[in-house]
Amino acid sequence: MAKDPIPTIINVDLKKPYHEQPGLHTRWHPEIPFYCKVKPGEVFKVECFDSSGGQVFNTDDADDIKNVNPMGIHCLSGPIEVEGAEPGDLLIVEIQDVQPFPDEPWGYTAIMDPAKSSAFLGDIYPNMQKAIWDFNGIFASSRHIPHVKFPGFIHPGIIGTLPSYEMMNIWKERESKLVDFHASINTPHTVAALPNPEGAYAGQAVSAELAKKIAEEGVRTVPPREHGGNIDIKNLSRGAKAYLPVYVKGAGFSVGDIHFSEGDGEISFCGAIEMHGIITLKLGLIKNGMKDLSIYNPVFLPGPVEAHYGPSRYLTFQGISVDESGKQHFLDVKVAFRQAVLNAIEYLKKFGYSGEQAYLLLSAAPVETHISSIVDIPNSCVSYSIPADIFDFDIMPKEGGPTPQGDMGSTVFPTSK
Amino acid sequence: MAKDPIPTIINVDLKKPYHEQPGLHTRWHPEIPFYCKVKPGEVFKVECFDSSGGQVFNTDDADDIKNVNPMGIHCLSGPIEVEGAEPGDLLIVEIQDVQPFPDEPWGYTAIMDPAKSSAFLGDIYPNMQKAIWDFNGIFASSRHIPHVKFPGFIHPGIIGTLPSYEMMNIWKERESKLVDFHASINTPHTVAALPNPEGAYAGQAVSAELAKKIAEEGVRTVPPREHGGNIDIKNLSRGAKAYLPVYVKGAGFSVGDIHFSEGDGEISFCGAIEMHGIITLKLGLIKNGMKDLSIYNPVFLPGPVEAHYGPSRYLTFQGISVDESGKQHFLDVKVAFRQAVLNAIEYLKKFGYSGEQAYLLLSAAPVETHISSIVDIPNSCVSYSIPADIFDFDIMPKEGGPTPQGDMGSTVFPTSK
Amino acid sequence: MAKDPIPTIINVDLKKPYHEQPGLHTRWHPEIPFYCKVKPGEVFKVECFDSSGGQVFNTDDADDIKNVNPMGIHCLSGPIEVEGAEPGDLLIVEIQDVQPFPDEPWGYTAIMDPAKSSAFLGDIYPNMQKAIWDFNGIFASSRHIPHVKFPGFIHPGIIGTLPSYEMMNIWKERESKLVDFHASINTPHTVAALPNPEGAYAGQAVSAELAKKIAEEGVRTVPPREHGGNIDIKNLSRGAKAYLPVYVKGAGFSVGDIHFSEGDGEISFCGAIEMHGIITLKLGLIKNGMKDLSIYNPVFLPGPVEAHYGPSRYLTFQGISVDESGKQHFLDVKVAFRQAVLNAIEYLKKFGYSGEQAYLLLSAAPVETHISSIVDIPNSCVSYSIPADIFDFDIMPKEGGPTPQGDMGSTVFPTSK
Amino acid sequence: MAKDPIPTIINVDLKKPYHEQPGLHTRWHPEIPFYCKVKPGEVFKVECFDSSGGQVFNTDDADDIKNVNPMGIHCLSGPIEVEGAEPGDLLIVEIQDVQPFPDEPWGYTAIMDPAKSSAFLGDIYPNMQKAIWDFNGIFASSRHIPHVKFPGFIHPGIIGTLPSYEMMNIWKERESKLVDFHASINTPHTVAALPNPEGAYAGQAVSAELAKKIAEEGVRTVPPREHGGNIDIKNLSRGAKAYLPVYVKGAGFSVGDIHFSEGDGEISFCGAIEMHGIITLKLGLIKNGMKDLSIYNPVFLPGPVEAHYGPSRYLTFQGISVDESGKQHFLDVKVAFRQAVLNAIEYLKKFGYSGEQAYLLLSAAPVETHISSIVDIPNSCVSYSIPADIFDFDIMPKEGGPTPQGDMGSTVFPTSK
Repeated sequence: MAKDPIPTIINVDLKKPYHEQPGLHTRWHPEIPFYCKVKPGEVFKVECFDSSGGQVFNTDDADDIKNVNPMGIHCLSGPIEVEGAEPGDLLIVEIQDVQPFPDEPWGYTAIMDPAKSSAFLGDIYPNMQKAIWDFNGIFASSRHIPHVKFPGFIHPGIIGTLPSYEMMNIWKERESKLVDFHASINTPHTVAALPNPEGAYAGQAVSAELAKKIAEEGVRTVPPREHGGNIDIKNLSRGAKAYLPVYVKGAGFSVGDIHFSEGDGEISFCGAIEMHGIITLKLGLIKNGMKDLSIYNPVFLPGPVEAHYGPSRYLTFQGISVDESGKQHFLDVKVAFRQAVLNAIEYLKKFGYSGEQAYLLLSAAPVETHISSIVDIPNSCVSYSIPADIFDFDIMPKEGGPTPQGDMGSTVFPTSK
Repeated sequence: MAKDPIPTIINVDLKKPYHEQPGLHTRWHPEIPFYCKVKPGEVFKVECFDSSGGQVFNTDDADDIKNVNPMGIHCLSGPIEVEGAEPGDLLIVEIQDVQPFPDEPWGYTAIMDPAKSSAFLGDIYPNMQKAIWDFNGIFASSRHIPHVKFPGFIHPGIIGTLPSYEMMNIWKERESKLVDFHASINTPHTVAALPNPEGAYAGQAVSAELAKKIAEEGVRTVPPREHGGNIDIKNLSRGAKAYLPVYVKGAGFSVGDIHFSEGDGEISFCGAIEMHGIITLKLGLIKNGMKDLSIYNPVFLPGPVEAHYGPSRYLTFQGISVDESGKQHFLDVKVAFRQAVLNAIEYLKKFGYSGEQAYLLLSAAPVETHISSIVDIPNSCVSYSIPADIFDFDIMPKEGGPTPQGDMGSTVFPTSK
Repeated sequence: MAKDPIPTIINVDLKKPYHEQPGLHTRWHPEIPFYCKVKPGEVFKVECFDSSGGQVFNTDDADDIKNVNPMGIHCLSGPIEVEGAEPGDLLIVEIQDVQPFPDEPWGYTAIMDPAKSSAFLGDIYPNMQKAIWDFNGIFASSRHIPHVKFPGFIHPGIIGTLPSYEMMNIWKERESKLVDFHASINTPHTVAALPNPEGAYAGQAVSAELAKKIAEEGVRTVPPREHGGNIDIKNLSRGAKAYLPVYVKGAGFSVGDIHFSEGDGEISFCGAIEMHGIITLKLGLIKNGMKDLSIYNPVFLPGPVEAHYGPSRYLTFQGISVDESGKQHFLDVKVAFRQAVLNAIEYLKKFGYSGEQAYLLLSAAPVETHISSIVDIPNSCVSYSIPADIFDFDIMPKEGGPTPQGDMGSTVFPTSK
Repeated sequence: MAKDPIPTIINVDLKKPYHEQPGLHTRWHPEIPFYCKVKPGEVFKVECFDSSGGQVFNTDDADDIKNVNPMGIHCLSGPIEVEGAEPGDLLIVEIQDVQPFPDEPWGYTAIMDPAKSSAFLGDIYPNMQKAIWDFNGIFASSRHIPHVKFPGFIHPGIIGTLPSYEMMNIWKERESKLVDFHASINTPHTVAALPNPEGAYAGQAVSAELAKKIAEEGVRTVPPREHGGNIDIKNLSRGAKAYLPVYVKGAGFSVGDIHFSEGDGEISFCGAIEMHGIITLKLGLIKNGMKDLSIYNPVFLPGPVEAHYGPSRYLTFQGISVDESGKQHFLDVKVAFRQAVLNAIEYLKKFGYSGEQAYLLLSAAPVETHISSIVDIPNSCVSYSIPADIFDFDIMPKEGGPTPQGDMGSTVFPTSK
């Protein structure tokens, strides 16, 4: 009756291009064939590429960032068929553990080409750059952002079920309308990632016809949606449990985009500590749960094991809905959040960090953001809390101002423009 | 050398109209006379009216809510002169304790007249109503929202310093521009509360001329701004420490709008548990701190004493930037937050709560909201976490759906329309 | 339907000797008359003297400590009859709040006359002395132990029900046997406080005969026993819930010995921060709970609101069962605990504290002690954790040793020997 | 500059007898040869056998427990030379991570032969038995103790430095005296494990002469001592940092006895969840730290990442210094602790667990024990807190008593007597 070691049901070869391996895919579509099957209650492991599918390396330049093909993002592991799952059920996803590969104890945070991404401060910090993080057990530290060390809320950025055609079409229609509207008002930046066959990968061996259909119809993995998707919730970490709607028979569960750590917001876009990793999972079902429980969007419970520092160890910045030009916005939470982040960056620069270092640090470290008020017209107030104990110097406000910490190194850049 | 009891430097008479008492005021203006003076390091108490200045009562109807004059909001205690404070300094505000008056162990949460307020779900829940909360020591419970009991993050909704003319004029100009713009596009609701002499109260005996000047020029207390103001941050509770910019000689510190508890966002506008109360304070200074530390907006440290339930006891809902009509918005955090709240309300209704009860409960209870992602175009993801242990029944998702809890009572309404 | 202010059912006059006031008593006995009556579910307040019944003062000498009559300890408020309580039930005690009197924001920690007490380090620190603590809201600090400030786990040291004659006689018999045994081996110190009419106070007006009976038969309040009593559990703080056995009809609940804060062990005997205070309570019943639940000793649930600093902020000392003379004991937890405390004191002395200051500080501050191992013969291992954040300097181990903090003041002594 | 994968400096072959492998040893002695060397600041991994050195298996009987040779306990990995370490220094031990072997996701808790062990309740539960725990990521659950699941405070039970001859001789002398004394009073059980060549293993290839010397002189690994040793502190988990005295040049650091989880006290002797595992470490030095910091016993800081449930989720039992026969002891913490444990076991039995199941569960689960009072003569009060959320049913006290949970299975026994 001794239990066997936990089986790994999806293996990846990090040395081989992801699009030559089964069990991986880069789009959401009802007809992506299941790669494997589990029963409710079984515990199993899944290996995952980093979000880029292996396009970024543990190096001291950012040439890889410059060359990333965003169409290959995200490289997901799955889909996994769940025995007995039917549309209308809720899929219970228990995240039993998440780990880096033993031989790959590193990750990265980056500012990507603004033309290919939607970073929160892309207008202020437009230049591509990268910071590598080394993992020493539960801790991350960086040769490119010195004087910090922290345990991650390690988590998958993406968990999701396959959409039905009906669901997928709703997504496509509403996102197309948004794109059309912004085209009509000449918005200069990309507002949504519409279906695009480039870089699409359907995973398992399929007919050329089906591969083409999936490539053309499949929705992109960029946003979070009703099925889960790119929710990027840092608290979906070890021990967490999520409840996802099921739209197709067998559910079709996929997972990927593993983060060693992330600050709320993942602000620099490639802002978490992106890594290859292994996730241990147990799936279950609540039959007919969507209607019985009125759950049509993901619901989750964080795990019992988290880093905690004591509330009084969080230095907290605020932002209101007045942008940096002084313009007043109406209860705009995004503007308020942006101001809180900018306030924090200016503060950290006083210790000697560059703006980019502070920006990447706040993207990656376990920073907490709260929408503190949403009704005090015209200003929303967002609070933004940095754990003081991740620094090896004292960041508390003091008479006379901060003590600069000497040589603070630098994030890394592409070697040629 | 025995220490005297802590002195109360501002007393209020809850039985008397606030505008007949010194030490209270309802606007921000550089020339509001100081009511009293403290030295850095002194510990003292300040009594405060509830935000309405005593317009709401511990009753089982909402006639008071119907009759509230919003121009009298907020009734603040102050301003207090701080010896040695000069423009450019940071005022350190240590919140040593916050308590209800011993004989007034109650508070309220309300939906106000939509014409007078800006509730987050005002379009869905427009009808005025009220829930009274009884305080039993550190716990609040309500005869109008049964089956819940929780300790509050008791805090002042408003702390702030007097603005300089320069600062005040910046506020007035940017808010006027916002109002003008929205007038030009016919926005049907109020977008900002501009200066208005009605209900203005300057506190200390002043010449009619100065009173008139303050009433006409003084800015309203509704939003949070650079000096603090209506920040409504629930974590600014017992033991917290805030750093506020100083704009005038003597700083002019005021405080009020005490909340027994508040959910992040204070969503129903009068959404915290509003109460009369007593706050124990210690003020300090960081000379020239604004420039030395690059702090031009409030910064704070929460206190070490908070309710905590364990992370895995927070049932967490999500919302994305797709509104309830199905329309896609671009990284709109407010839309995402709204969807998360609506998802939570629908879930709670399954247990027998009315929508209004759930709405007021989520306004008042210690609910946490995080901006989980802000870069995954076109959807922001907001997570919204409810502590399961505030309920006396099990709210976890279960096969077969929730067990309704029988008679759930009701919030209360105005007795006549 | 508005709730009245919470009634105070036992008032004390701190200016008057406790033994002239009803509602107070200093012994446990089945026939102490009930002072008042409550129904299950009612919320009420009880005022309490400090443990000494007002014998200690907010002064800068320890003459009061020298003169304390230990027979008057503890001065308890009660007993309160609980409607419907019968032997075999469990009394549910909800501690809704504990507060100092508004005009008495101070407490004390002391080393008493070794002849009258049983301090943990009485042999090493035998001299009477005292430290006064001032309360600023939730924080305590001391003019006699500088550089520390902390929020208390405010709690009653004593909660209990009246014993039956049967229970009381068991207590008396077993404690007498212990005293007899130690007398036979000439133990030089007091091992138990047996019944003693001196200082006995039966509370309510009773016949001289009954008063005499209670004084002669009544057991002392010094130890914790099956009914609760002097449990001195710091976590029985705001929001906690205890379940106590009921031995007599009406239960007879009493409370007292309020502590603003206490370190695990209350090591200096008068080791918590002793204070006068007000406790808000709600009582309930589990009928026949003792047998149904196999609960014959108190069980409790701490409250949800506690100070927390993050686990990595606790500097933790260890002790093993080898005493300071180098003698090996067999799995002796008390010896191990003592060594851990001594190790901590030696460490704190390096910063400039006197041994007595460190001793009183560790008695009073929220220090955590764990029995880490009890089976690793011959040594038990006790760990003893001090929150670093209660100090205003850095106590972490560093190369080069601690930086002494200059003038550290002193605890206070009797003015004459 | 990319960092290499973290090197494993001690490998073990779990299939081969430990005493045929270098890098392992079972005694403490100054002359055990170093197996390998690290520099301060290097990060490395060490593989470890379980405490028994592989004598216990993932089976459904306890024949292995019956056959364990206690002389082989504990099998430690080391000693590791630390460059630059000298007597008088403090060795900083950073525990970066602890993990089971990926293919060995299991552990065990056992009651051993009382003749070979010193279990806390050995007189009440003398029969050998075992429970196997399966690890699913961060969670442990057991087919032998159903209805519980919890994340472990995974930690090494043993970390230590090599003693000098002087230190070792002090240990031997004091323990011999204890044995002699107990022999003189005919104590029926073993009170200390004195040096014994049986089962001694010196690790690296050494001359027969030196091996014999180490076997004869080397002290046993059973107790914790000044150098660390078998401290069994559950909070020395992921991210913790310990400071150990250094007695010999090169320090000689060893580690082992890894526990997936442990309740305070490790009460059943083989009471933690014992497992094979891999630990990631970083070592550092504080030169001359023993004297500079007055640290002559281990000091440590727990890590920032722990399971936490909220204080109000801990059902807490108490015990006082009156043993189960009713005999009064004088401030005996061990008796008080024992009563608290017995009270908890009786309570859990009401739900259907056997006494042995409850005993092993409390040994292994993250149970917290506090010495609440040590001065209230004649009773010490120990509190003993069980996290309610590790059970899949409600353990809170309720009217009518517990609901038994049906078939509760059983721990396993030797197949023959």
